[in-house]
Amino acid sequence: MKSIAIDIGGTTTTYGIVDDSGRIISKDSFLTRGPESLEEYLHLLKDGIRKMLSQADSESEIAGIGIGAPCANYITGEIDGATELPWPSPIPLKKIFENEFGVPVVVANDAKAAAIGEMQFGAAKGIRNFIMLTLGTGVGSGIVCDGHLLSGARGFAGELGHVSLSDSKMRKCNCGRYDCLQNYCSASGILETARLILKESDTASPLRDIPDNELSPKLIYDLAKEGDAVSVLIYEKTAEAIGKACASYAAFSDPEAFVFFGGVANAFDIMEPTMRKTMEENILFLYGNRIKLLQSTLNEADAALLGASALVFETLSK
Amino acid sequence: MKSIAIDIGGTTTTYGIVDDSGRIISKDSFLTRGPESLEEYLHLLKDGIRKMLSQADSESEIAGIGIGAPCANYITGEIDGATELPWPSPIPLKKIFENEFGVPVVVANDAKAAAIGEMQFGAAKGIRNFIMLTLGTGVGSGIVCDGHLLSGARGFAGELGHVSLSDSKMRKCNCGRYDCLQNYCSASGILETARLILKESDTASPLRDIPDNELSPKLIYDLAKEGDAVSVLIYEKTAEAIGKACASYAAFSDPEAFVFFGGVANAFDIMEPTMRKTMEENILFLYGNRIKLLQSTLNEADAALLGASALVFETLSK
Repeated sequence: MKSIAIDIGGTTTTYGIVDDSGRIISKDSFLTRGPESLEEYLHLLKDGIRKMLSQADSESEIAGIGIGAPCANYITGEIDGATELPWPSPIPLKKIFENEFGVPVVVANDAKAAAIGEMQFGAAKGIRNFIMLTLGTGVGSGIVCDGHLLSGARGFAGELGHVSLSDSKMRKCNCGRYDCLQNYCSASGILETARLILKESDTASPLRDIPDNELSPKLIYDLAKEGDAVSVLIYEKTAEAIGKACASYAAFSDPEAFVFFGGVANAFDIMEPTMRKTMEENILFLYGNRIKLLQSTLNEADAALLGASALVFETLSK
Repeated sequence: MKSIAIDIGGTTTTYGIVDDSGRIISKDSFLTRGPESLEEYLHLLKDGIRKMLSQADSESEIAGIGIGAPCANYITGEIDGATELPWPSPIPLKKIFENEFGVPVVVANDAKAAAIGEMQFGAAKGIRNFIMLTLGTGVGSGIVCDGHLLSGARGFAGELGHVSLSDSKMRKCNCGRYDCLQNYCSASGILETARLILKESDTASPLRDIPDNELSPKLIYDLAKEGDAVSVLIYEKTAEAIGKACASYAAFSDPEAFVFFGGVANAFDIMEPTMRKTMEENILFLYGNRIKLLQSTLNEADAALLGASALVFETLSK
């Protein structure tokens, strides 16, 4: 079985043909903001897919199309309110692609596609209850219960990046509220932690010689690996926030594992001990010492396409 | 279709025959701690059920047995670690009753049975995504997603009474942690709020003339209805805690409604405006102004039996 997978990102749109073993048969991409209108964008995308299908001689074997995109709703099949994209909402993706290609189309936001991708092809293979946390520009999540992605009453289940961690109103979130998980564990959250720690202490650190606009989670990670105490502390604070959040989330869905993906999750190796310690210190005894913390095993460059394709296989297997 | 429903409580055990329209055909009860051993207890219960079945001439029509009990696990079918009950754990209820009566047996904790009961017969009829909160001696919960009760990896999904609301470590919970929802919204939680408010202010109130051991949520409710400002404030603080918790829980399962049951929820009419206001002030915009807050519509005396019987009908309809 094969699927067409589409990943619509703020910068790049990638599409490809993926089989049900997770093999990417072909893929291509273009800049999302290249085309001047949504119409032109869709034309370019459909055209690219048609060419790819005819070259791969695969048209007859395509079971469906999976699309991962910001603010894409699994229930309505629409993109609604994605500030990362230059077009007005809603965009009825499911309808547009079903009309064009005559196969089932499944739409989900990036984090939910990632959760299904991880279950089909990655670290969550064989795990029927887990929570996926994508720690990138923002923090997304997908909750899988009994082998199925929670969608909720209107497709908005699993916005764990916007669960508030504290009542101290320390960090304002772009959602208008305070102290969301995202404010601590996204790329910008970890940079804010870095700035605070640098300001509040005078411990020497190579970080002090780096201009603020050149700071990145990757750079801090590299310094932490080299033993820079400040960088280590920055990731420790981040890991504490994640561990505390996981302790709280466990009481919802009693997961077997948390799976982490994204830029900040690339520091999983140095965060894991503190994440686990803080989670166990804060967790209800029922869940103690049995929840796995796992890093995604999908190649970062392919994960979005694999997630989008997994949406198709998961939905068809229901 | 009929079921045998059993509600095992710390004080009373109730059992009955319930049909699938929610009619209780017959019911009986005895004191849980009356029999001297678990063996004697089970003997009494089985015997009572057998007599009831033969009197109702219903034995051939029984589709299954539903049992609601503290710490009863939907997945294992066992009671495990119920401090309210006088017997050692685990108690393999499902196995015991399946062997005895030769029909399917479904076991769940009280709050989860209540959630299913509410969906089949009560306020959540026709609602496929909701969160049930039972505000009684403790705070229990049942999360229903897409028409099904979340059970989680090991049957412990939905322990929302033990999600921490604050990082201020103000109230110690019997789970060993701090500031769980249960510490604010259970019967004892509201009494603690009452004591604090009485201590911190000197506003006149009839509550000041009542001995501490005679304080109850019902008494405070009655005084609030009569306009006692301190009693009104006590329920306002309680409602704020619930509203804030609901705002947080929404990000998990995107529910259409929260449904409230139990002693403290009997004050729903006076808590509802503050619950709603606080929930809306704290909720992520995606969920704003669309989640219903509902009071259980089941008769309190029958709710546990209806919940236990609904477990059977819900499971058989899967």
